[in-house]
Amino acid sequence: MYKLLDKIKSPNDLKQLNIDELKLLCEEIREFLIDSVSETGGHLASNLGIVELTVALHTVFNVPEDKIIFDVGHQSYVHKILTGRKEGFKTLRQFGGMSGFPKRSESDCDSFNTGHSSTSISAALGIARGRDLSGDNYNVISVFGDGALTGGMMYEAMNDAGHTKTPLILILNDNAMSISKNVGAVSKHLRQLRISTFYFKSKHAVENFLKKIPLLGKPTANLLKQIKRFFRRLVIPTTIFDDMGFIYMGPADGHDIKSLIQCLEYAKDEKRPVLLHIHTKKGKGYTPAENNPSKFHGISAFDKATGKTKETGETYSDRFGLAMIKQGEKNSKVVAITGAMPNGTGLYKFSNKFKNRFFDVGIAEQHGVTLSAGFAVSGYIPVIPLYSSFLQRAYDQTLHDVCLQNLHVVFPIDRAGIVGSDGETHQGIYDISYLSHMPNMTILSPSTLDQLENMLDYAINIHQGPIAIRYPRGSVQAEEIGGDFIPGKAEILRQGTDVTIIATGRMVKRAQEVCAIINKSAEMIALPTIKPLDETAIITSAKKTGNVITIEDNVKIGGMGSMIATLLKENDVKCKFNIFAFPDCPVTHGSIDELDKIYGLDADTIASKIME
Amino acid sequence: MYKLLDKIKSPNDLKQLNIDELKLLCEEIREFLIDSVSETGGHLASNLGIVELTVALHTVFNVPEDKIIFDVGHQSYVHKILTGRKEGFKTLRQFGGMSGFPKRSESDCDSFNTGHSSTSISAALGIARGRDLSGDNYNVISVFGDGALTGGMMYEAMNDAGHTKTPLILILNDNAMSISKNVGAVSKHLRQLRISTFYFKSKHAVENFLKKIPLLGKPTANLLKQIKRFFRRLVIPTTIFDDMGFIYMGPADGHDIKSLIQCLEYAKDEKRPVLLHIHTKKGKGYTPAENNPSKFHGISAFDKATGKTKETGETYSDRFGLAMIKQGEKNSKVVAITGAMPNGTGLYKFSNKFKNRFFDVGIAEQHGVTLSAGFAVSGYIPVIPLYSSFLQRAYDQTLHDVCLQNLHVVFPIDRAGIVGSDGETHQGIYDISYLSHMPNMTILSPSTLDQLENMLDYAINIHQGPIAIRYPRGSVQAEEIGGDFIPGKAEILRQGTDVTIIATGRMVKRAQEVCAIINKSAEMIALPTIKPLDETAIITSAKKTGNVITIEDNVKIGGMGSMIATLLKENDVKCKFNIFAFPDCPVTHGSIDELDKIYGLDADTIASKIME
Repeated sequence: MYKLLDKIKSPNDLKQLNIDELKLLCEEIREFLIDSVSETGGHLASNLGIVELTVALHTVFNVPEDKIIFDVGHQSYVHKILTGRKEGFKTLRQFGGMSGFPKRSESDCDSFNTGHSSTSISAALGIARGRDLSGDNYNVISVFGDGALTGGMMYEAMNDAGHTKTPLILILNDNAMSISKNVGAVSKHLRQLRISTFYFKSKHAVENFLKKIPLLGKPTANLLKQIKRFFRRLVIPTTIFDDMGFIYMGPADGHDIKSLIQCLEYAKDEKRPVLLHIHTKKGKGYTPAENNPSKFHGISAFDKATGKTKETGETYSDRFGLAMIKQGEKNSKVVAITGAMPNGTGLYKFSNKFKNRFFDVGIAEQHGVTLSAGFAVSGYIPVIPLYSSFLQRAYDQTLHDVCLQNLHVVFPIDRAGIVGSDGETHQGIYDISYLSHMPNMTILSPSTLDQLENMLDYAINIHQGPIAIRYPRGSVQAEEIGGDFIPGKAEILRQGTDVTIIATGRMVKRAQEVCAIINKSAEMIALPTIKPLDETAIITSAKKTGNVITIEDNVKIGGMGSMIATLLKENDVKCKFNIFAFPDCPVTHGSIDELDKIYGLDADTIASKIME
Repeated sequence: MYKLLDKIKSPNDLKQLNIDELKLLCEEIREFLIDSVSETGGHLASNLGIVELTVALHTVFNVPEDKIIFDVGHQSYVHKILTGRKEGFKTLRQFGGMSGFPKRSESDCDSFNTGHSSTSISAALGIARGRDLSGDNYNVISVFGDGALTGGMMYEAMNDAGHTKTPLILILNDNAMSISKNVGAVSKHLRQLRISTFYFKSKHAVENFLKKIPLLGKPTANLLKQIKRFFRRLVIPTTIFDDMGFIYMGPADGHDIKSLIQCLEYAKDEKRPVLLHIHTKKGKGYTPAENNPSKFHGISAFDKATGKTKETGETYSDRFGLAMIKQGEKNSKVVAITGAMPNGTGLYKFSNKFKNRFFDVGIAEQHGVTLSAGFAVSGYIPVIPLYSSFLQRAYDQTLHDVCLQNLHVVFPIDRAGIVGSDGETHQGIYDISYLSHMPNMTILSPSTLDQLENMLDYAINIHQGPIAIRYPRGSVQAEEIGGDFIPGKAEILRQGTDVTIIATGRMVKRAQEVCAIINKSAEMIALPTIKPLDETAIITSAKKTGNVITIEDNVKIGGMGSMIATLLKENDVKCKFNIFAFPDCPVTHGSIDELDKIYGLDADTIASKIME
């Protein structure tokens, strides 16, 4: 039971509270977040950091009239609590339950769905311009972290927004972190700004002084303008945001609710593009999260007292991390590039051991991929592990800079297939479709940890040209199915005469489960190499059994099954044929098993369709 | 015959010339460019603007040891002339002839292939880091225009480069233009810098003065640092590039060869990340191009005396432009967004008539698409025409921001299919493959100008959700084939019993040509709607004829034919089946007819395969 929080049914209730009550409310929200996320898992550290800001936003602004867009969106928990969705935390990120990200379908207080980084200013500007065209008068606010500022879209949007004078409020929630410690020149620039705390306090004084200098006709005005500029430069450091045409305000203490409210009131009154820079502490108020914000960025259920999570088995990311150490030792030409994910991808081990061959580019997949192309041109072998749904951001660079030039770049694709509780924006179910039509691209997918290691060795030391290795999220729990990796060759795991079951990656195990259920003689084929297809093996088996089933954790259109369908059709192989893959619709959040079942990819469903 | 130019066989020959000779050489190069491009067509204005810079680069640096990367690459003509490829201009952009872009396969003086904007700093940084790891000592130079700075990748790369101190020379060739007049806050910032010409001259004086202040132990040093900063701020305006960690030099006159050589020598000596800002005039030295740089950006053969090109027939872009005027009048909710292409897309007519509903975001496709998503959320109907190969840059935004939210955004895709002489980086042959697997996406393709107009009307006023309309480059020359557009329905243009020929877009005419050659009863089906497929029509016809041929100007993998193969295979329709599409390799430059023929998509080849 919470004294204040339990009474907050809508943001309007906030507006009755005084500063001391708001402070108490913030404490209660923190307690609720820790209690709740320790039970369900979810994004914790970023939400603990943004409690005061969110409370201040809902004190000053009125949703759903005013539009608040949360960049990336995993820091929208406090917003959800304050907009009538506190009960939803019981089912957070569970199938049928509340999403961990803003969803327009969930509440009209969520004005734009987010998930990937750095989209919020673009979306906010579109909404703001729509507002102006309609003659409406509401506020549009984009809330983003300093990590998002490593993504190029933000500059594209600021470049557009800064020169057109559309009223827009940008809030830079600066905790010197993206998911890991933030990197880059802008981050350094922000660090310098954080030190110069005098700026915000003095700006008003200076502006007021400058305004008082009278204007005395045109020629003098021009001179005075120059004098003004001169004085301004003396006392006010120019920020990159000034250069982009924004009114810069800050830095303000992001945990001081009173000062935040003042700043937001001021920003609201400006009626121009404003950037408010606040600094916060990721994980604020919960010691384990303050000490290890990366671990508590996104976390599974944990023990509240100790901050400990359950031990899990070895993951593909773990194995990739270990294999990269070996590769770093074996081949001095190997370099590793990450997009702000040294921990998530398992690359931190390599980064510790081979500091000079490790490069964190920030949340900048586009740059990361073309940087890799540059490395390849200079004779190095770049390995750039990215999550499947984040590599989407670098589609053009992968095609245009790597594949068309046939450069030797290794793309380990982590979180390929269903990722589970992060939901539709994070599902890695498009990569086979978006990579397979790129010229020169080879696509591999291991069904065992050892295969991943072998594939990485092959990709680095033997293969030439672009090559992707897709592997799933999570730990390996049951016995693995699959033998040695032979490049380009299908692996016939079981001979049979009635039906050919072709699967790849984590679905190889599913194929085996299906075989155990059906009372047919099944030929089971794993495709560790998805592109190019082992055409001979597939056609031979299809002709033998006259019935082909394909299973993959990718969407059906443009996926492995579609490639096999085309192969069989063009070669006039007469056989029954069925694809098991994700359908042509957004795939929601839920556990991997639940989602497989819902979309007909569980063993029972597949088996029963075969038996029909 | 050119007095000096004819003697330049390699860049080394340049190094023997004095300043006056270099000036004469520049004149001769301009003359050669105008002569040559007026005959073959190509990119003219940007190359005229960069003559002195390129000559200065090759005077100061040594290729192939030093690496020069030309962003976008269409301004590499002078570089090609100076690196032994003057003769190549006779076959510029022709099949089998010299490419209009840097190509590593063409010369070891071309260090990175470019084509799309804003990739050059990323590539340069990768090469420079490779150099440092190898302990080599060459220079890496990225040359880009102010237009490229509207693309977010540049900031991702500068953010990474600016904080690591890798020696790198960036040259900002600022002509206040992208392809059209440049836009945005950064452009304004550059305009201000251009005005303050004092900067470059005074910098040295100031730095020298500051260096002379002696350091007197630690505490004093700190104080002196602050004093230095104070003085520096007094006389040197901070630029956005300083904020990103670069040493900013400029602005310099980009047509003053002597001063350019000095600047480049200085930049070379810095051994840190340097940005040299030069200003140039696009089209310099040829009055028609100076007066209309957009027209002479990329141009077909023209009359040298008048600057006039041949009249061509109506293009799909022309018709799109006209149709948008009608839509602007008909529906007040229509807004139009362009990525620096008001002319190329035909949108300039709309931009003149509906100024407040037109938005040029710069070369920033990512932002443009998410901005469109924002407009859709605010109740407007955004129409964002982009070239097929440039929409690639916004793959993630199209999927993540538009399709997953099922927002009503209209994507007219210009230059879909083979574009011809621009070659592999610009071919629009991937869009069916990269759009078809996006949930909620509808894909249309007209085979007549009238259909385009009808489709646009449907897409704006009737359809809900994301919708793409792909149409080819160039003018419509012969009689068009195709009737009224009925959404979702195949158009049976001719009934037959022996073979079904399914085609879309410009390939509908090809299907008709094929029908005229073969002595079989062909059923000819156009698919104005590619996604969703008209399954009934396709299956019915396939069953009737037992032989299906598909023709499209997209790659085969993930294309229309593959979708049809999957449909037929899953429905167990027994029929012969052949896909005619572009193969899984980069498709070079050449005329559309030549490329169709080379890749087996001409009528004769298709007809003879059917007759087999």
